[in-house]
Amino acid sequence: MLTPKVQLLLTGNELMTGDIVDSNSAMMAQVLKDIGLGIMRKVTVADDLALLVSEITYMASTSDILIINGGLGPTVDDLTAQALALAMDEELSEHPEALAHLTAWCKQRGNALNGPNLKQTILPSSCRIIANRSGSAVGFSVRYKDCDIYCTPGVPHELKVMLQEQIIPAISKKSPKNLIADITRLQVFGLGESSLQKMVDEKLAQWPADIDLGFRAGKPLLEVKLSINSERGLALKPLWQKKLADALGHHLIAEINEKPYSLAQHLINQLQQDNIKVTTAESCTGGLIASKLTEISGSSNCFEAGFVTYSNNMKTAMLNVSADLLTQKGAVSEEVVIAMAKGALLKSHADIAIAVSGVAGPSGGTEDKPVGTVWLAWGGINDIKTQCLLIPYKRNHFQQFVAEIGLDLLRRYQKNITSIPNYIIDNAFTTKR
Amino acid sequence: MLTPKVQLLLTGNELMTGDIVDSNSAMMAQVLKDIGLGIMRKVTVADDLALLVSEITYMASTSDILIINGGLGPTVDDLTAQALALAMDEELSEHPEALAHLTAWCKQRGNALNGPNLKQTILPSSCRIIANRSGSAVGFSVRYKDCDIYCTPGVPHELKVMLQEQIIPAISKKSPKNLIADITRLQVFGLGESSLQKMVDEKLAQWPADIDLGFRAGKPLLEVKLSINSERGLALKPLWQKKLADALGHHLIAEINEKPYSLAQHLINQLQQDNIKVTTAESCTGGLIASKLTEISGSSNCFEAGFVTYSNNMKTAMLNVSADLLTQKGAVSEEVVIAMAKGALLKSHADIAIAVSGVAGPSGGTEDKPVGTVWLAWGGINDIKTQCLLIPYKRNHFQQFVAEIGLDLLRRYQKNITSIPNYIIDNAFTTKR
Repeated sequence: MLTPKVQLLLTGNELMTGDIVDSNSAMMAQVLKDIGLGIMRKVTVADDLALLVSEITYMASTSDILIINGGLGPTVDDLTAQALALAMDEELSEHPEALAHLTAWCKQRGNALNGPNLKQTILPSSCRIIANRSGSAVGFSVRYKDCDIYCTPGVPHELKVMLQEQIIPAISKKSPKNLIADITRLQVFGLGESSLQKMVDEKLAQWPADIDLGFRAGKPLLEVKLSINSERGLALKPLWQKKLADALGHHLIAEINEKPYSLAQHLINQLQQDNIKVTTAESCTGGLIASKLTEISGSSNCFEAGFVTYSNNMKTAMLNVSADLLTQKGAVSEEVVIAMAKGALLKSHADIAIAVSGVAGPSGGTEDKPVGTVWLAWGGINDIKTQCLLIPYKRNHFQQFVAEIGLDLLRRYQKNITSIPNYIIDNAFTTKR
Repeated sequence: MLTPKVQLLLTGNELMTGDIVDSNSAMMAQVLKDIGLGIMRKVTVADDLALLVSEITYMASTSDILIINGGLGPTVDDLTAQALALAMDEELSEHPEALAHLTAWCKQRGNALNGPNLKQTILPSSCRIIANRSGSAVGFSVRYKDCDIYCTPGVPHELKVMLQEQIIPAISKKSPKNLIADITRLQVFGLGESSLQKMVDEKLAQWPADIDLGFRAGKPLLEVKLSINSERGLALKPLWQKKLADALGHHLIAEINEKPYSLAQHLINQLQQDNIKVTTAESCTGGLIASKLTEISGSSNCFEAGFVTYSNNMKTAMLNVSADLLTQKGAVSEEVVIAMAKGALLKSHADIAIAVSGVAGPSGGTEDKPVGTVWLAWGGINDIKTQCLLIPYKRNHFQQFVAEIGLDLLRRYQKNITSIPNYIIDNAFTTKR
């Protein structure tokens, strides 16, 4: 049995105008790679019926699997079902299963079914429905010219769920049985792609060819991926994964086989395990650290309160930071973040705190404290650590990165990891695509 | 003279494996749009000689302009020149101008010319060189099958410079002089794609064909885009834009020709104009509203403090919400969000506040207050409005949507817009991208 030929057809005016960057096809490539399949060719066209029909006809005749992405929505420019029916010379008809899905979807939300919605139930007669538990439009699949065609929604999270739960298992079943696809991901923070590459070149020069090593830069966590397709690779894996983990040292956040965790999730897990409560005192991040913590389900067990003290007056009123101290040292200073952390601990009765104050820019910088300067203080009331960083990114990247650093500093504190990486040199936020 | 047909051919293994997301084609679409050209179709393939030859042959015969991106580098998998020469049945030869460029490039950097570098000077005989002032590989162009083919480097900043300085001016010279590309975007909140489509079908049935109407669902703002490329369309625009704006009513946030604004930016602009200060009292959104406000540069003029009161105790300690009230009515209640808003106003001395308390889930729901229930209170100390919503999304979507609703409610309050849309029915968070 040969490895199936896979092609992608992406449709949407927004993909042709430069209004959005296509990230769906990278996501599809990644999940397909996990079952040992590559993508041979992808074609992107606007919402144009004639073009879609001609692409579908040609692509179906030159692939074993064709994934069509986009064009399932309720508006007139959503043409996938119509184009597929034309290509296959088949009728469009109301699909009972699609109608049932849409009716339930609307009912659950208290919405009335309207005409545009109903358009989403008019599908090629021979199609099989692919359930969508996170959106109104169902996916569907057909077999045409010996090719399995899967039609999928353009909304990234709907696509992702549908791929993981429905399409990948269906494709797997039809693919060669001897494919091994063993994937392990190492999550890394505070180290960038080029440093990683250099480290591997220097410390792991004998890396075996049977274990494919890939890097994926992310914000904030960089991922090192070990992919194995052979028995030989599987046998070598434990030794080399250990060597890699040792080389990564305290930059390594976790070794995982499943869904990656965020830094906030890692921290919340640790705090829950230790039965510890945390609080936040934020100036330049303006509530972002608190919101990253509370995004995690179960955070109420370890987070009761956060203080967003954006002005000097409010640092005094809410956290008892002395007005004299603010005048003498300035809001962006070691003394002030320590006072903010202490104030937050006393007011919230939490066990540990993180406090941040910095110059997010674009204005507000001085010669002493240029835009990008940030002071952080963290720890328990009798054991407060501090750090000053200069983070040369534009405002929202600065805020995001400072918030993630804050979470990592708390995670290290709670795990008794005393080392702190150089977050600034060559981190994931500075590397190119 | 007809508008030229433009196609893109992107080549590179990294584009097929999901290791990088293609942002080059969005960049190309944007610079082409500036001279009134759209992209009809794009094809992406791995570094495979046979596939490249067949794509080039077909695409050259179906377009007036073909831009090939990638495959110009020094390594063995860079195949563009070879594929193009094969497609055109032409010899490859060392190009003197390319050699001169590369020699100068290496000299300037103190590098010796090596074999892999020299490969970059071996080009189809008939090609014209496109200078590259930011990289070692030159671009080149040929004319084949009445199609102008431009071969460009994959490195984004090299591509960008080459497009702006060389290719776009060359294409402009050959394109119709009377091209118009007039784009207006209407930002909409609290209304989804299918409702919008229905509204257009019903109220604007005579919409003129000369004004292209496109929808782009976003989180949270949906965008309605009017694209015009004829004098006739321009003449019709004022009337029909007005009709559309009237139909959108208070769902219309702004009509813009340039960079779209976020809801937080719209609010901050209004607050700055009115010299008004705002504060936040957040339970279920955990600091997200504050962080959205402080992401905006200049927010310090109208935001001093935010209160993240996640537990009941902290609602009492930080905002003076009565413990009895919390016991009697529960944290998710009209009375409690009013007390939170009042407490935040008194503690922060702000002019207006937003307070939210809800059940973000996945646990914590009851029969009376299921997961997704949220109470909001907003306004000035003597004029507090309230609203209860049931938002049936998973935790982080719930939080994001509640935060955006909070910003919109404040925006409406400050602009004296008394109507409140039904945020839940058919909003942008449930529809496709």
